[in-house]
Amino acid sequence: MSTALVILAAGKGTRMNSDMPKVLHQIANAPMLIHAMRSGAPLDPERTVIVAGHGFDAVKAAVEDYDPEATVVLQEEQKGTAHAVDAARAALADFDGDVIVLFGDTPFVRSETLENMVAARKDNAVVVLGFEAADPGKYGRLVMDGDQLSAIVEYADATDEQRAITFCNSGVMLAGREEIFALIDAVEANNAQDEYYLTDIVGIARGKGLSVTAVACEEEETLGINSRLHLSQAEAIFQARARAELMDLGVTLQQPETVMLSHDTIIGRDTVIEPNVYFGPDVTVESGTHIRAFSHLEGCHVSRGGVVGPYARLRPGAELAENVRIGNFVEIKNAILDEGAKVNHLSYIGDASVGHDTNIGAGTITCNYDGVMKHKTTIGANAFIGSNTMLVAPVTIGDQAMTASGSVITSDVPAEALALARAKQVTKPGLTTKMFDLLKSKKKKRDEGAN
Amino acid sequence: MSTALVILAAGKGTRMNSDMPKVLHQIANAPMLIHAMRSGAPLDPERTVIVAGHGFDAVKAAVEDYDPEATVVLQEEQKGTAHAVDAARAALADFDGDVIVLFGDTPFVRSETLENMVAARKDNAVVVLGFEAADPGKYGRLVMDGDQLSAIVEYADATDEQRAITFCNSGVMLAGREEIFALIDAVEANNAQDEYYLTDIVGIARGKGLSVTAVACEEEETLGINSRLHLSQAEAIFQARARAELMDLGVTLQQPETVMLSHDTIIGRDTVIEPNVYFGPDVTVESGTHIRAFSHLEGCHVSRGGVVGPYARLRPGAELAENVRIGNFVEIKNAILDEGAKVNHLSYIGDASVGHDTNIGAGTITCNYDGVMKHKTTIGANAFIGSNTMLVAPVTIGDQAMTASGSVITSDVPAEALALARAKQVTKPGLTTKMFDLLKSKKKKRDEGAN
Amino acid sequence: MSTALVILAAGKGTRMNSDMPKVLHQIANAPMLIHAMRSGAPLDPERTVIVAGHGFDAVKAAVEDYDPEATVVLQEEQKGTAHAVDAARAALADFDGDVIVLFGDTPFVRSETLENMVAARKDNAVVVLGFEAADPGKYGRLVMDGDQLSAIVEYADATDEQRAITFCNSGVMLAGREEIFALIDAVEANNAQDEYYLTDIVGIARGKGLSVTAVACEEEETLGINSRLHLSQAEAIFQARARAELMDLGVTLQQPETVMLSHDTIIGRDTVIEPNVYFGPDVTVESGTHIRAFSHLEGCHVSRGGVVGPYARLRPGAELAENVRIGNFVEIKNAILDEGAKVNHLSYIGDASVGHDTNIGAGTITCNYDGVMKHKTTIGANAFIGSNTMLVAPVTIGDQAMTASGSVITSDVPAEALALARAKQVTKPGLTTKMFDLLKSKKKKRDEGAN
Repeated sequence: MSTALVILAAGKGTRMNSDMPKVLHQIANAPMLIHAMRSGAPLDPERTVIVAGHGFDAVKAAVEDYDPEATVVLQEEQKGTAHAVDAARAALADFDGDVIVLFGDTPFVRSETLENMVAARKDNAVVVLGFEAADPGKYGRLVMDGDQLSAIVEYADATDEQRAITFCNSGVMLAGREEIFALIDAVEANNAQDEYYLTDIVGIARGKGLSVTAVACEEEETLGINSRLHLSQAEAIFQARARAELMDLGVTLQQPETVMLSHDTIIGRDTVIEPNVYFGPDVTVESGTHIRAFSHLEGCHVSRGGVVGPYARLRPGAELAENVRIGNFVEIKNAILDEGAKVNHLSYIGDASVGHDTNIGAGTITCNYDGVMKHKTTIGANAFIGSNTMLVAPVTIGDQAMTASGSVITSDVPAEALALARAKQVTKPGLTTKMFDLLKSKKKKRDEGAN
Repeated sequence: MSTALVILAAGKGTRMNSDMPKVLHQIANAPMLIHAMRSGAPLDPERTVIVAGHGFDAVKAAVEDYDPEATVVLQEEQKGTAHAVDAARAALADFDGDVIVLFGDTPFVRSETLENMVAARKDNAVVVLGFEAADPGKYGRLVMDGDQLSAIVEYADATDEQRAITFCNSGVMLAGREEIFALIDAVEANNAQDEYYLTDIVGIARGKGLSVTAVACEEEETLGINSRLHLSQAEAIFQARARAELMDLGVTLQQPETVMLSHDTIIGRDTVIEPNVYFGPDVTVESGTHIRAFSHLEGCHVSRGGVVGPYARLRPGAELAENVRIGNFVEIKNAILDEGAKVNHLSYIGDASVGHDTNIGAGTITCNYDGVMKHKTTIGANAFIGSNTMLVAPVTIGDQAMTASGSVITSDVPAEALALARAKQVTKPGLTTKMFDLLKSKKKKRDEGAN
Repeated sequence: MSTALVILAAGKGTRMNSDMPKVLHQIANAPMLIHAMRSGAPLDPERTVIVAGHGFDAVKAAVEDYDPEATVVLQEEQKGTAHAVDAARAALADFDGDVIVLFGDTPFVRSETLENMVAARKDNAVVVLGFEAADPGKYGRLVMDGDQLSAIVEYADATDEQRAITFCNSGVMLAGREEIFALIDAVEANNAQDEYYLTDIVGIARGKGLSVTAVACEEEETLGINSRLHLSQAEAIFQARARAELMDLGVTLQQPETVMLSHDTIIGRDTVIEPNVYFGPDVTVESGTHIRAFSHLEGCHVSRGGVVGPYARLRPGAELAENVRIGNFVEIKNAILDEGAKVNHLSYIGDASVGHDTNIGAGTITCNYDGVMKHKTTIGANAFIGSNTMLVAPVTIGDQAMTASGSVITSDVPAEALALARAKQVTKPGLTTKMFDLLKSKKKKRDEGAN
């Protein structure tokens, strides 16, 4: 049976206290909505429909950026979850299969859980996802009768006996397309909020004699995010999982709780990560590397044997071949560094390529911007760039070429050539005492003038 | 009824193991004594008297820095809490109202709690602050009789029945000025330490037929700090509260536990704070800004749309107008940056003003110090400062002016002018092989010489 | 009675998922095996024998680096703990005393615990180390009969009654040399794994009528490390202990959980450590210093009154005399800075000495590497190094000498002399508008060409 995901993502999220729609707030540097989409991905859904409302355009843009095949439909007014699913009706009109309803603010449902729901669907018209609540509070209770779900009872309507039930409703549901929309047609807005609730379809289905069951997942999977505090808690859950996975794979995290990972961070075995490292999106670190403290990586690739940091910043497009060494207070952007290249101190290498075994001295800067355009710097292999060299791009430095420290290089330097751009040193004996005396008398006058 | 605060701050704090008086150790970058003063501030006290002893001068200086109206009195010897309050007698001789006794090492009493005490004062001569202890241990027990406080019983003197009481004494007290000093006169030093205890005034008051009650607060409010471990725990409590408040206000903290806030940090809504950011005192960040990882801010102001970091350091006097961008390894001190200005890499901008939309290249330094005095750098709007420009202050760069990379600028540059100070590049073909051969033979000789 | 340590360190540690032998994975920047060796050191052992297997050469090298007197023996196949101890037999053939068996992956046994075992040895032939387990799970149980240990019962073989015992076996054991090897001779490999278990010597000893007892320690001391997750937990335990000790000694850690300490970090009283500081191996910080946020220290010494950071990196050989100031984005390596010297911004000082009260301007670099050799920079006292000075080593700057900002200094500068190496500033009026117009038209062409 093919599957369609319907993800409800129309809410404003008032408690987020934000101009940005709630589902675009990020966990591990991806919008929470994308996490929800990813959790459904292993089902290989034939369709994905996002029901958006508040911040429709921004949500649509984020969805299309992640999955151009997904459909984003508008729920103009927010009149309950059944009303929201109904907004996906037209988009699924020609779809023949099962519909699974997820929530854009509930990013942690595991794929295995959804697979369990799909399996349970074989013998049931409707499958509801529930969880054993440590503290059931005001959650809706799932009243089971054997393996059949008799009813979902809202806390307000529950008897004491029902309130004692700890198996609670997550809101996630699975049913055939035709059935789910037929059931939704029967839902009424009999409540103070005048809203149509998807949970009502369970009672309606049972009334029609349909088979309904519930599948259980961990409570953590159903975490819904309604505030920035929840968001930070979700981040903590994500990070704890991701760090544990890395450690299992053979990565050493000296102080795991100080390392920030992104949703797509890849790190190889026998890599050591010191404390306080930030992995932004799209980072791959190969095996056997050492990422030192206070490093910040985004959109980059570090190959085997690399040593990065402390205080190294690798920005998008930084590609480090094997055994490259990036030291402290160094920024690399959109640059390819070949095997064994070294940039150890206080440098900015942007829009550049650096050949193998080349050494870039402290304070080197690729002057890649002329105020209007960015230009490229090309440095050969086994070159030696002296400290504080300004490489005014576009410029090419040949293999085994050398620049003298403090030089501003505006013309290409051929292979094996030495380039200098340096004023001659002049030393004026005995001058400093006089100079400082002069400065001190000036200061005295200035201070007196101030009074 | 007007109120006077008396804050006891004379102790040495032996367990702090410090040369600094205990009450000056800091929480969230303010001395704990100042936190205690702030907790009393909403009562709008007519007088504030700090009773100091150890480190008197340092305590007096810190108090006067925070509140020049406060009086600091000396308790020469430390002979108990009643003796300490007595040291405030002269300073309150002409004061007609209520006296509330707080402790300089108990920084977390909430203002609401003090207001509850003031309310209870209406019907009582003396009001004591108590708390329900999770583990009452050796705290003094508050023996209640209805809403009246019968006695404060020290643990050592308590019966088993009294030890079972979990309502404990915080030490904080409120009474009329005349009464409190009259009661203190009756306190005797009947104990091994030969000290006068303020808690004794409860028994004395009851003996005189006065009405005494107790008001309850949260245990956390009464946290007393006696060691650096306590200090770090108090810091953690403060930070957790402050982070939660920010999140409520609509600030995203990716990993809240890695962000250090100061007592006076202000951050606007829809700002995103990446991990590992340090907010020192006196920082204001407007809404809709992005503070990236590993940034360090003190005494500065970031306006809407600003992007700061990673690895940006904003020091006192850094004023960023809207949409300013400060990048990595950049230090800004005592400098005003106008709208849209950019300092993206490896620069030091100190004692300067920068016009709107000006771009400061990598490695730029304002040479603001001549060894004796600091001087100012003025840069106009839409200017382009080339990489590694040294701006030798005092110096002015005009609107739309430009400096060539690697230039040392010692004279003013008019608007729309280009300034260069650069040696011509000379390229010497084929030189490096010979040079490295020479260096290698020198090294060989040196290494042989070493053996 | 003299003591010999036998430390079992032959295992592969499959769950570490590493090419490095398990016992070389580090806690607080020392291999866990070294922690185990250190825990035995206060017993002043006459011999230390490490039984290595997997990664023998690497383990041998690490052991000899820490204690050249230790003997590393090879256990070629890993056939159980008794078999492992047996591998130490030849190395102890001429030793007359007690043998204590420790584990290279159990780094936290306290010296006091080992001393308790030694004390218990007086009246017993064999002493076993046990612990009260919070959750005894599948640990071997210690069946006591008064102060005698009747048996160690493996979980699989235990009766329900025995499983109810919470006093468990740590594996650590103490016995006379002759006895332990005689007992090991009697051990048989009666198990599915075909291994020889050291625990079996307890039953054998009892069968021979020997006296056997057990000594108790804290469960935390027996933590065995089998995965990177365990490793991170062990790191957390070490750090929590070390931070608490520092706070007791009078060091302020603003946010203790963000400070990384090494096994040998020494910090003096009344030092303030801001959040996010990394102490690598071999760091000594004297009293009354201030280590600001995001600093990274290794192999260095900071004297009284020093202020370091934020973002300061002190590498091995950095020696700071009193009241030295190292500011942001500054790297110091193998350099001695005399009293009151200042390096405040964006500099690299390597292989250098700096005299007292000298001020090093922003962006200064010691060009210490010529591509083949490292050379030294010597700077006198009260000197003033202008911003962005390149000091091309070997070079000497005299007392009270000065360099102009932006100078490349290749020749020595005598005391009180001023050295300049700077091109004259040329200012070209009205040029930038034309230049930018030109650049913009070029860009337009390029953009058009791209389409």
